Amino acid sequence: MKTQTLKGFKDYLPAESLKRQFVLQKIISVFQKFGFDPLETPTLEYEQTLTGKYGEEEKLIYKFTTPGRDKVALKYDLTVPLARVVAQYGPGGEQALPIPFKRYQIQSVYRGENPQKGRYREFLQCDADIIGSSSLLADAEILALVFEIYKELALSVIIKINDRALLTKYETKALSAIDKLNKTGEERVIEELKKKGYLDAKEILEEVKTIKKSENLAETESYYLEMGYTSDSLLFDPTLVRGLDYYTGSIIEVVLKKDQSSPSLGGGGRYDKLIGQFSGSNLPAVGFSVGLDRTIEAMEEEKVLNVPQTNSKVLVTLFSPEFLNKSLRLTSSLREKNINAELWLDKDNKLDRQLKYADQKGIPYCIIIGPDEVTKGLVTLKNMRTQTQETTTLDSIIQKLSS
Amino acid sequence: MKTQTLKGFKDYLPAESLKRQFVLQKIISVFQKFGFDPLETPTLEYEQTLTGKYGEEEKLIYKFTTPGRDKVALKYDLTVPLARVVAQYGPGGEQALPIPFKRYQIQSVYRGENPQKGRYREFLQCDADIIGSSSLLADAEILALVFEIYKELALSVIIKINDRALLTKYETKALSAIDKLNKTGEERVIEELKKKGYLDAKEILEEVKTIKKSENLAETESYYLEMGYTSDSLLFDPTLVRGLDYYTGSIIEVVLKKDQSSPSLGGGGRYDKLIGQFSGSNLPAVGFSVGLDRTIEAMEEEKVLNVPQTNSKVLVTLFSPEFLNKSLRLTSSLREKNINAELWLDKDNKLDRQLKYADQKGIPYCIIIGPDEVTKGLVTLKNMRTQTQETTTLDSIIQKLSS
Repeated sequence: MKTQTLKGFKDYLPAESLKRQFVLQKIISVFQKFGFDPLETPTLEYEQTLTGKYGEEEKLIYKFTTPGRDKVALKYDLTVPLARVVAQYGPGGEQALPIPFKRYQIQSVYRGENPQKGRYREFLQCDADIIGSSSLLADAEILALVFEIYKELALSVIIKINDRALLTKYETKALSAIDKLNKTGEERVIEELKKKGYLDAKEILEEVKTIKKSENLAETESYYLEMGYTSDSLLFDPTLVRGLDYYTGSIIEVVLKKDQSSPSLGGGGRYDKLIGQFSGSNLPAVGFSVGLDRTIEAMEEEKVLNVPQTNSKVLVTLFSPEFLNKSLRLTSSLREKNINAELWLDKDNKLDRQLKYADQKGIPYCIIIGPDEVTKGLVTLKNMRTQTQETTTLDSIIQKLSS
Repeated sequence: MKTQTLKGFKDYLPAESLKRQFVLQKIISVFQKFGFDPLETPTLEYEQTLTGKYGEEEKLIYKFTTPGRDKVALKYDLTVPLARVVAQYGPGGEQALPIPFKRYQIQSVYRGENPQKGRYREFLQCDADIIGSSSLLADAEILALVFEIYKELALSVIIKINDRALLTKYETKALSAIDKLNKTGEERVIEELKKKGYLDAKEILEEVKTIKKSENLAETESYYLEMGYTSDSLLFDPTLVRGLDYYTGSIIEVVLKKDQSSPSLGGGGRYDKLIGQFSGSNLPAVGFSVGLDRTIEAMEEEKVLNVPQTNSKVLVTLFSPEFLNKSLRLTSSLREKNINAELWLDKDNKLDRQLKYADQKGIPYCIIIGPDEVTKGLVTLKNMRTQTQETTTLDSIIQKLSS
């Protein structure tokens, strides 16, 4: 058997999977607090649904023909499936979706890219979008959502904001150079602009840098302040472009407050034309996408991601076959009290091996019931981190493990 | 744009997705209580990893060649990826996995079957397995796990149990006929056996029906009883076969107590040879797989799945632009109290349209702040189900919505 993970793909072993679940649960709780409901779409779509949507990137889509001769493609992002869903079940479709449609979607997408450090060909996208509202209140809601997500994740961030409508007079190729200002600095941007044929590179950059906030942005910000947020969480940045061509209004990007030139933790904005273009229904939209891997990385750097490497709270060891029934009953008692309790499964193993397993798996406590404990009607609790132990009543152990 | 879900695949719109999330959360909580940790493996594997593992069914695997010329296949089940992971990171591998390795895995698998009613080509598998223990305590733990899962889901079930070792003297083709006893009845089983050339069909069936419980089963059951469970939750059924050839010891299948011939809600058993055969490491294993779709269906039939159609608890309406700021602040106050609150986003809409939206989405409450409310310093809460409303203080509304 080939015992390798497919190149560019990744296994999440328990400790890493637990971290992701922890972060996702927090993000989901905020999505829900703002009234977003979950949507799940299939891994595969008709190839036709995906073609003509991603420009140059289309070559990165995984495509194949099924045995039943359907031409299919693996999800490339969550936006095109969302557009399909809105067209299929929304106004003009089967009329099942209330508009505005506020959905979150957390699913894998697939891109046949050259795998770089930390970039995989399958990765989880984590999007929340409001479909069907052109109101700037929706833009403000997204700002509030973003603020609350990173607050929940204990990351101190700045939300950079701009209005794509302010940049319509500039060519895409100029904008893509200007977009790099925070990452590479002024000199290299000017250099790139010159290379692209802009003789007045310096002047263009200066001009963009002095663009004033649009009325729409000012209005959006005023709603955000009315909601109780403060303006120091926002930073108007006229040089913020965001790569995707499809934005039409507000665009945002989240960066760590202490290192604003580091890669963004997530981004989004208003895209009023895209859904209509895909689906035929003219539906304005605004949304945000959490960059999950980058966010988890930042949480680790900031030391705010403290997730145990296992769900198990305690290993109930087996002292000898004679006391097996005590360990069995004790394990059930702990579980009844909602304590995640693991039972050692092999009645012929020495205690040493059992403790070693707990240590390797990262289980914080072990319980030992031997002849002494049984005589006294007590149990011994060993703290695997401090390597200390106490012999006490079951009740007191339950109390300790529940906290 | 093609606005169709790929044939044989399924979208989960919010109400349905919420149901699944609810059930999965309950199942996960039980997995965790028993010390199982999550594992996630990629959607795609090297084709070579999957070939030669599924016998006749191999033709149902989705296979293709990537642009990078890798021959790949979509996950067909979670057992082969588990075997790969154990070989790759387990003993003899990178030594990262503690043995026994107790993992749960909830991911989509893909099968190019002819889609039948309620059977999809992509569906969620929901497995828990213990790898690396031949102890019957592990079999008993799986029984306890299964009991607790369905108890948590409020389904009254029977765990049918058998020992595959009791059936080794019978041919596979005879067993596959006998396996249908509960579904089709005695007559048709005998008919099928005769068709397959067993002239003594009736005698074979009678013989199987009178097989006595094995010592292993009796020992497993004794551990289960020691854990505090009662024997009326188990039913020894010597005619239980389970389709898969790879089982070597205990096999179980869960059925509704009130309708034991209905399709099973899940199944599992001991498979001591499979992991070794796939991975080269000789690791005994026992596990269980929840049939998620069938389980959700049964919960609906039994009326024990009462999940709101939306996460939103309340819609804060907009009465007029004049009072917009009141609605904005109120929404934030509710969210601060962990109440899932949605803000109406379009300040030009009539109240009627807002209430209709809440009704369509299934939001249970609406809040109205108009001139009367502002004057009195109160808010109006409308119960969308009873169509009654009260005007009261914010605090009392928070209390009501928190409960």
